Amino acid sequence: MPTGTKKILILGGLGFIGKNLYNRLVQDGHAVTILTERIHDESDGFLTPTVRQHTVQGSILNPQLMNNIVAPFDVIFSLAGSSGAADSIRDPYHDLDTNLKGHLNILEACRQHNPGALLVFPSSRLVYGKPAANPVREDHPLQPESIYAIHKITTEHYYLLYQRLYGIRAVIFRIANPFGPFQRFGSNNYGILNWFIHRALVGEPIEIYGDGSQQRDFIYINDLVEVLTRTIDTPAMAGNIYNLGAGGGISLRQAVEVIQKYIPATQVVFRQWPEIAKKIETGDYIADIELLKQHTGWAPRTSFDAAMKETIAFYDRSNK
Amino acid sequence: MPTGTKKILILGGLGFIGKNLYNRLVQDGHAVTILTERIHDESDGFLTPTVRQHTVQGSILNPQLMNNIVAPFDVIFSLAGSSGAADSIRDPYHDLDTNLKGHLNILEACRQHNPGALLVFPSSRLVYGKPAANPVREDHPLQPESIYAIHKITTEHYYLLYQRLYGIRAVIFRIANPFGPFQRFGSNNYGILNWFIHRALVGEPIEIYGDGSQQRDFIYINDLVEVLTRTIDTPAMAGNIYNLGAGGGISLRQAVEVIQKYIPATQVVFRQWPEIAKKIETGDYIADIELLKQHTGWAPRTSFDAAMKETIAFYDRSNK
Repeated sequence: MPTGTKKILILGGLGFIGKNLYNRLVQDGHAVTILTERIHDESDGFLTPTVRQHTVQGSILNPQLMNNIVAPFDVIFSLAGSSGAADSIRDPYHDLDTNLKGHLNILEACRQHNPGALLVFPSSRLVYGKPAANPVREDHPLQPESIYAIHKITTEHYYLLYQRLYGIRAVIFRIANPFGPFQRFGSNNYGILNWFIHRALVGEPIEIYGDGSQQRDFIYINDLVEVLTRTIDTPAMAGNIYNLGAGGGISLRQAVEVIQKYIPATQVVFRQWPEIAKKIETGDYIADIELLKQHTGWAPRTSFDAAMKETIAFYDRSNK
Repeated sequence: MPTGTKKILILGGLGFIGKNLYNRLVQDGHAVTILTERIHDESDGFLTPTVRQHTVQGSILNPQLMNNIVAPFDVIFSLAGSSGAADSIRDPYHDLDTNLKGHLNILEACRQHNPGALLVFPSSRLVYGKPAANPVREDHPLQPESIYAIHKITTEHYYLLYQRLYGIRAVIFRIANPFGPFQRFGSNNYGILNWFIHRALVGEPIEIYGDGSQQRDFIYINDLVEVLTRTIDTPAMAGNIYNLGAGGGISLRQAVEVIQKYIPATQVVFRQWPEIAKKIETGDYIADIELLKQHTGWAPRTSFDAAMKETIAFYDRSNK
């Protein structure tokens, strides 16, 4: 391999972040392997024959497989696991098994077979719960409002403990609301903007709970992936937890206005909060991203409008 | 039942805290049931025929049993689960199963069959890790240094979430270093003072890692149990996390001096720190107990010297 290129494993590499990260890492010249539980050939054009050659089918829930696979890699992105705050409340045991046990398997495998690896774990802004004030710094109290968010905190601690006990380096990101190409489409479980764009593209009205004034910190996937790649060459990041967002708030109403700019026929209806959604709604969230900027020199580069335009174009030509 | 008496379930009621709590609650006139995984008739005289009548054998790891058992109780003390920071590092999966799944079973059973119950969960001072300064308030950052401590944090969040989502009341205590009668004897896994007393009573030297200057907040079990009973009649405690300690520091060297006062032949040897013990040693710890005092009016009543005298006398006449 050329100097500077690394052997990189993406666990859960056929998810939203995984696909975008894979493309970027390959473009940067790295040797990238994907591990995925199911090889689902979606209509988004990602799974080319070349990508398929670098994809291994298997689960992080299989400790033996993890023991066998981790050794050769310089960097492991731990993107596998189930997501969904509401689902985790309906079935806490499932969330426990897929998230906590899965990440213990990754860490135990690295402890035994690859303690020199750098691990990157995506946590969530949901660990904060309802912020006392915005923007939210990393030392804000943690008041998780779902089993999913509780287990994100647990997993953060796992990674930090394994660095402390065994020297396995770990970088943790509390990711805000990512959006962009390759997010799973056609369900409201995977990112509200993609769901909104889907509704607009198929000519159905966008439903908003409440008055649409609630703010989110929407981070475009290309900007997010840029941060993930910085971990490879920034040793000082190891052992730290960083907020990863755009550092600004956009209301759902503003987001819809941008969609209407590019898909003018888009309709919106406002609905009352369903009970469970209301209980886990966290109110406005804006990330304080100063720590990340200081340690990496990174700053988000894509405007919300430009990012939405690219995202809409992507979905318009792939899988509506 | 007389007015004011409650139906109370102690999960893990044959443990150290459980036995002392049982005796006190019965003395106060409550109707108390013990659930225990194993009915082990130790030589400490606790398991009388009467107590045995109120003891049910079963595990919190059995969800069906939990569903069947919780309904009639006003208060449930969730004292079951495995303990041991070093053990949890050797087998994180075991700690995950016995602690996290067990407490989810309790909470799910109450959600479905007894949402009006008051639950009391014993967390640990170990959630803080190495304190930045003493005394430690409840809002001190959490830097757990073992899987055991991580899972204590997770379980705290579980209890608070179930109160938030389903109205099940929960009171959480971060317990310092409890000691006194009925602590398991003859092993250094269950409380350092009891281990020291055991060594002194059998005429073996007490081993101290380092110079013995490390301070602990030793809380006598009678004072601790008094706090647990306050939860029954103090509704304002629900939803809170409290430090539970004596609020002062005693060094291991001082503790040994008190043992030598009552068992004059006691020998001490100082040893270098073993590797794993050194990694999870948290340094001095003193609890700030102001919040607990404010909410309950409680204060510890037993001097360290008097508590040690009682504890030594108990072990001297029961199981050496």
